[in-house]
Amino acid sequence: MLFYDCSTAPNPRRARMFIAEKGLTIETRDVSIAKAEQLRPEFLAVNPRATIPVLVTDEGEVLTENLGIAAYLEARFPNPPLMGVTPVEKGLIATWTAIAEHQGGLPIAEALRNGNPHMKDRAVTGVVNHAQIPELAERGRTRARAFFDMLEDRLQQSPYVATDTFTLADITTYVFVDFARVIKQRIPEGHTATQAWFDGIKARPSGTA
Amino acid sequence: MLFYDCSTAPNPRRARMFIAEKGLTIETRDVSIAKAEQLRPEFLAVNPRATIPVLVTDEGEVLTENLGIAAYLEARFPNPPLMGVTPVEKGLIATWTAIAEHQGGLPIAEALRNGNPHMKDRAVTGVVNHAQIPELAERGRTRARAFFDMLEDRLQQSPYVATDTFTLADITTYVFVDFARVIKQRIPEGHTATQAWFDGIKARPSGTA
Repeated sequence: MLFYDCSTAPNPRRARMFIAEKGLTIETRDVSIAKAEQLRPEFLAVNPRATIPVLVTDEGEVLTENLGIAAYLEARFPNPPLMGVTPVEKGLIATWTAIAEHQGGLPIAEALRNGNPHMKDRAVTGVVNHAQIPELAERGRTRARAFFDMLEDRLQQSPYVATDTFTLADITTYVFVDFARVIKQRIPEGHTATQAWFDGIKARPSGTA
Repeated sequence: MLFYDCSTAPNPRRARMFIAEKGLTIETRDVSIAKAEQLRPEFLAVNPRATIPVLVTDEGEVLTENLGIAAYLEARFPNPPLMGVTPVEKGLIATWTAIAEHQGGLPIAEALRNGNPHMKDRAVTGVVNHAQIPELAERGRTRARAFFDMLEDRLQQSPYVATDTFTLADITTYVFVDFARVIKQRIPEGHTATQAWFDGIKARPSGTA
């Protein structure tokens, strides 16, 4: 297998944590988004959509999305399970992973990409440039704050995001919560359940992957 | 099980097609978004995030996202498989499902919700109102057009979106391609592979579900 990573971006980090939790060592190439290496012909030959992470499987298939990489690795290396064993576990983990993507990852990305001067014309990933929309940056910041509140409600009721054990939903949520620092948002004061959950994951070997 | 559906919206339709392809009959309640029924206390007691579809499982768990509903049903009712059997199939189907969501479903929703006068202040799903952003509607229309081109490239190389059989990736893509009519976009002239694929799915019993 060959894993295309980027040390500075949240989506590659999700795959990196998943690989670490599986105890796998996979040959890795770093693609620097800061140097726009994802737009170079060598990388576009691998993934014409210019996104990272990418996993090239032993069978030669190219998986260009976190959920695709996770589904493949979970099926090939079932232990420890990170996407559930029973139908209910699988359903809850996929549900909360999607909630973290839509209500956490997306608003944070919108705020960063539409608001940071360094990302001018890079408001959307991919080969085509799109101008920034300042109102969307503001909406993203507002929605990211709401995500922190929703998450605290959830973690007041559940030790982990989806079930009572650590799963892909925790990886996804943890990476986005940590990445919110780029839009100057942190776990709010008084969100004790979120802070305890976050500290617990940070202490895992994969937490600093 | 109890399925909360909405006959007019694309995301519930994805779950409805998945259920139909599995040959399941599930007790269903329709929630009218036109009447804002998803914001009523009765429904918020089921899903406080106010989104549809929702599947309440026999175990009493509430699955509020398409991918969660699909993961649960696939595990409980494995045949016919819609999310792959081998690791590579599972990886490709999850990858192309995510691509359809991010590059098809999201831009179309952005164009509709930020551009349609009937959706004033409903630019984002959920209980909190958000003002429309006209530039985002325009960006959504531009990106939806690019999605049609990317899809034609893919279907020129593959009989179905993810693998050589019908899967969840086809359901997801088909529903968004069809829903693009709400922003006045259709399969472009000359996109013969997409049109043939679309007509084939439309002819399935689930195609009009």
